[in-house]
Amino acid sequence: MAEKITSRASDFSQWYLDIIQHAKLADYSPVKGCMVIRPTGYAIWEKVQKVLDKKFKETGHKNAYFPLFIPESFIHKEAQHVEGFAPELAVVTHAGGKKLEENLVVRPTSETIINAMFAKWIQSYRDLPLLINQWANVVRWEMRTRPFLRTAEFLWQEGHTCHETDAEAEEETLRMLEVYREFAETYMAMPVFCGLKTDTERFAGAVRTYCIEALMQDGKALQAGTSHNLGQNFAKAFGTQFQTRTGSIDHTYQTSWGVSTRLIGALIMTHSDDKGLVLPPRLAPTHVVIIPIFKTDEERDAVLSKAKLLADSIRAWPTQKAKLGGPVSVHIDMDEGKSVGWKFNEWEMQGVPLRIELGPKDLAKNQAMLARRDTGAKEAVTITDIPARTLDILLDIQENLFKRALENRNQHVTDVNTFEEFTKTLDTKGGFVRAHWDGTAATEKMIKDETKATIRCIPLNNLQEEGICIRSGKPSKQRVLFARAY
Amino acid sequence: MAEKITSRASDFSQWYLDIIQHAKLADYSPVKGCMVIRPTGYAIWEKVQKVLDKKFKETGHKNAYFPLFIPESFIHKEAQHVEGFAPELAVVTHAGGKKLEENLVVRPTSETIINAMFAKWIQSYRDLPLLINQWANVVRWEMRTRPFLRTAEFLWQEGHTCHETDAEAEEETLRMLEVYREFAETYMAMPVFCGLKTDTERFAGAVRTYCIEALMQDGKALQAGTSHNLGQNFAKAFGTQFQTRTGSIDHTYQTSWGVSTRLIGALIMTHSDDKGLVLPPRLAPTHVVIIPIFKTDEERDAVLSKAKLLADSIRAWPTQKAKLGGPVSVHIDMDEGKSVGWKFNEWEMQGVPLRIELGPKDLAKNQAMLARRDTGAKEAVTITDIPARTLDILLDIQENLFKRALENRNQHVTDVNTFEEFTKTLDTKGGFVRAHWDGTAATEKMIKDETKATIRCIPLNNLQEEGICIRSGKPSKQRVLFARAY
Repeated sequence: MAEKITSRASDFSQWYLDIIQHAKLADYSPVKGCMVIRPTGYAIWEKVQKVLDKKFKETGHKNAYFPLFIPESFIHKEAQHVEGFAPELAVVTHAGGKKLEENLVVRPTSETIINAMFAKWIQSYRDLPLLINQWANVVRWEMRTRPFLRTAEFLWQEGHTCHETDAEAEEETLRMLEVYREFAETYMAMPVFCGLKTDTERFAGAVRTYCIEALMQDGKALQAGTSHNLGQNFAKAFGTQFQTRTGSIDHTYQTSWGVSTRLIGALIMTHSDDKGLVLPPRLAPTHVVIIPIFKTDEERDAVLSKAKLLADSIRAWPTQKAKLGGPVSVHIDMDEGKSVGWKFNEWEMQGVPLRIELGPKDLAKNQAMLARRDTGAKEAVTITDIPARTLDILLDIQENLFKRALENRNQHVTDVNTFEEFTKTLDTKGGFVRAHWDGTAATEKMIKDETKATIRCIPLNNLQEEGICIRSGKPSKQRVLFARAY
Repeated sequence: MAEKITSRASDFSQWYLDIIQHAKLADYSPVKGCMVIRPTGYAIWEKVQKVLDKKFKETGHKNAYFPLFIPESFIHKEAQHVEGFAPELAVVTHAGGKKLEENLVVRPTSETIINAMFAKWIQSYRDLPLLINQWANVVRWEMRTRPFLRTAEFLWQEGHTCHETDAEAEEETLRMLEVYREFAETYMAMPVFCGLKTDTERFAGAVRTYCIEALMQDGKALQAGTSHNLGQNFAKAFGTQFQTRTGSIDHTYQTSWGVSTRLIGALIMTHSDDKGLVLPPRLAPTHVVIIPIFKTDEERDAVLSKAKLLADSIRAWPTQKAKLGGPVSVHIDMDEGKSVGWKFNEWEMQGVPLRIELGPKDLAKNQAMLARRDTGAKEAVTITDIPARTLDILLDIQENLFKRALENRNQHVTDVNTFEEFTKTLDTKGGFVRAHWDGTAATEKMIKDETKATIRCIPLNNLQEEGICIRSGKPSKQRVLFARAY
């Protein structure tokens, strides 16, 4: 039998680690805080990359690659930036057997090194907009790490763009936020709130940081992607200037935006259950596993040859409109050293969305048994109908996972009007709490220190209403979204 | 007019740098020895990745990701490995504001950190073969750098595999060498010699290193890819053991193999000319550029609308069998701020394989002018025939570039029998020199010190023949391939 994993109810945190270990998504490495992304986990990341990369290119961005190392002095050029990142830097002091004249930091993010190039490449408004994206590894030395969610090194993409006006930069910032929202909801089947970060929570060096915020099954929020309007902060620090249409000289208006391997942690904690990983079909590396069932050699030959024909017919089924990113991926589990029951458990653990059971009795009836990973529902389907039915079920799973996550999320958004209600809701129910806040960093900090809840965002197009701050009692214009978060 | 580039004849080295600068493939960064790969250069790398990644998966490999940092002690576990890489390491001594207990080196290659994981993952022959690939950045602190060819940081893929027997490891080593050869010749249109490195030139820690070696237009050789049979060297250093089919315990037999962004340097120096970059169509990010030609607004409208229809019809043409990796990529240059002549030069500089000129006179004749980048040949083609003809020409360019490079390469392989002939050939003609060698490292070193020529490889299936070493006069069993190399 496959090893049991901890249940969510008994220890959510251990359940998360068990899923990662048993589904072979990642492993601990000998380097403190750095994980190894194993093939199954990396295959999910490749799916994420493929979808997002296409969306970035469709919105006019081009990929490039900038150095891993950044001269230490660069980090100091933007005042907020250095304050935010200095404590987390990994520093190269020696290379090629010698002490370096200037230390190099391993990029925690690339605004500085990229602006050094932008300043060289941009002369005129004709060079704008400049729309660049980079897929890369970055390093932020964290004290408490957790696979996928918070690791010293992680993989991500970072978009960096330059514009003529603040309005264009703001438009780009929101455009990419919408790309992230659409990806989270349509591909990850993960509902998100889109909003603005408070000054306290915004990116070090940004004018405005927007984010998408999701709810995990334990009631904690998770920031799944951010999009920053950098204004002219980095352009001024690095002298990224251009001649405007009217002939004057101005600093470029910039944005940056990123999502990382953290999304895999978000996927796990949004959909998975006590049997193991649950993956939305659009990001599942394997969509279907066929389990051949037989006892005699004769049965074996008949079942295997039917399984192969069935797999081919499923793979050949057209899927363009389903946005699966390619044909349905089918694996036949031909391992004869394992029992059927073991295989059922194992593939449920691995999160394959659909299992097809095929045995001699099924063959006799010209059918196979289809079992969904999300609901566990089983149905017998005539062989020739299976390819079409498979695609239908996969899309239904995709939709169902989103619906289920949305219902759970919506049940965990609570309006409160007093600080007592606020703390009680956080302690008993968790989730997002919508509450009035006076808009000051001091009150925000007080609430965080007292409850561990932070303002996740001020939702986009937020309803404006008169109210009283739950903590300070001062007047407030709107409710903001609080939560305890990863 | 587009700026002129240095000619190959006057200064090959400057010509190479000019191409990189003017075709915007890469740029110098503020970090010594680290380059920035600009969008055009990165798009070529993405094409390389796409083709190779597919081939790796077809041969059973799965992608994963291992930490950037390696504990310094790991590098010391394999004696040859540390000797080879220690002088080139970049070392992180501080992180998170503190001095580290153990220094971390930035991976120069990942055999050590990967073996630390293999040792954990592999217990039995049932876990073998284990076939892993990683796309990553690596750092080797080089004194003299050159964009794409030799940079402190570069992008590459590194395959790492474990097997039950030495024979299987050798088979895998040669299988991946063949993948590289086929890629070099079929996609890069770059003929290569496949062979074995001498003990002096083999990878630090390998039992045998195989390579593909190409000839650049200046007569120097370039190592374009390597595939290593590591034997049990790393397995022994890291305790990567497994229970065999007979129940005994053995160390795994391993391989590793890699190609890097150096391939882009190889592409440039194999095919490009004094007008700029020349790209084989299978790796060209843009296959066709359409240059609309007009004077009046009326002409403009007619030409542009025809150009768009033409572009769409070319994009829609089926290309599966052409192995272009997707539809024909077409760009219409609608920039009205540049002259037609400037555009011709600019797109030749950028290496777009086919230019289509479309003006009012062409429209009147229901045709357009097609101009090949490789030969400069022009032909008028009827509009409806253009999509099919475009594909034909692209494939012909692909073939022609290979043929041209092969002819040049073959003209630069010289058999010599004396040291005088040897040095004279190197000095006057360059290229590969086939000469007898006594098989000792001492003679190899003497020849290198005296002539700067190294043994590029002992070709696979090399003819065995009695001879006399050109330098020592001692008996030799075979000729080996010498060259001055990058």
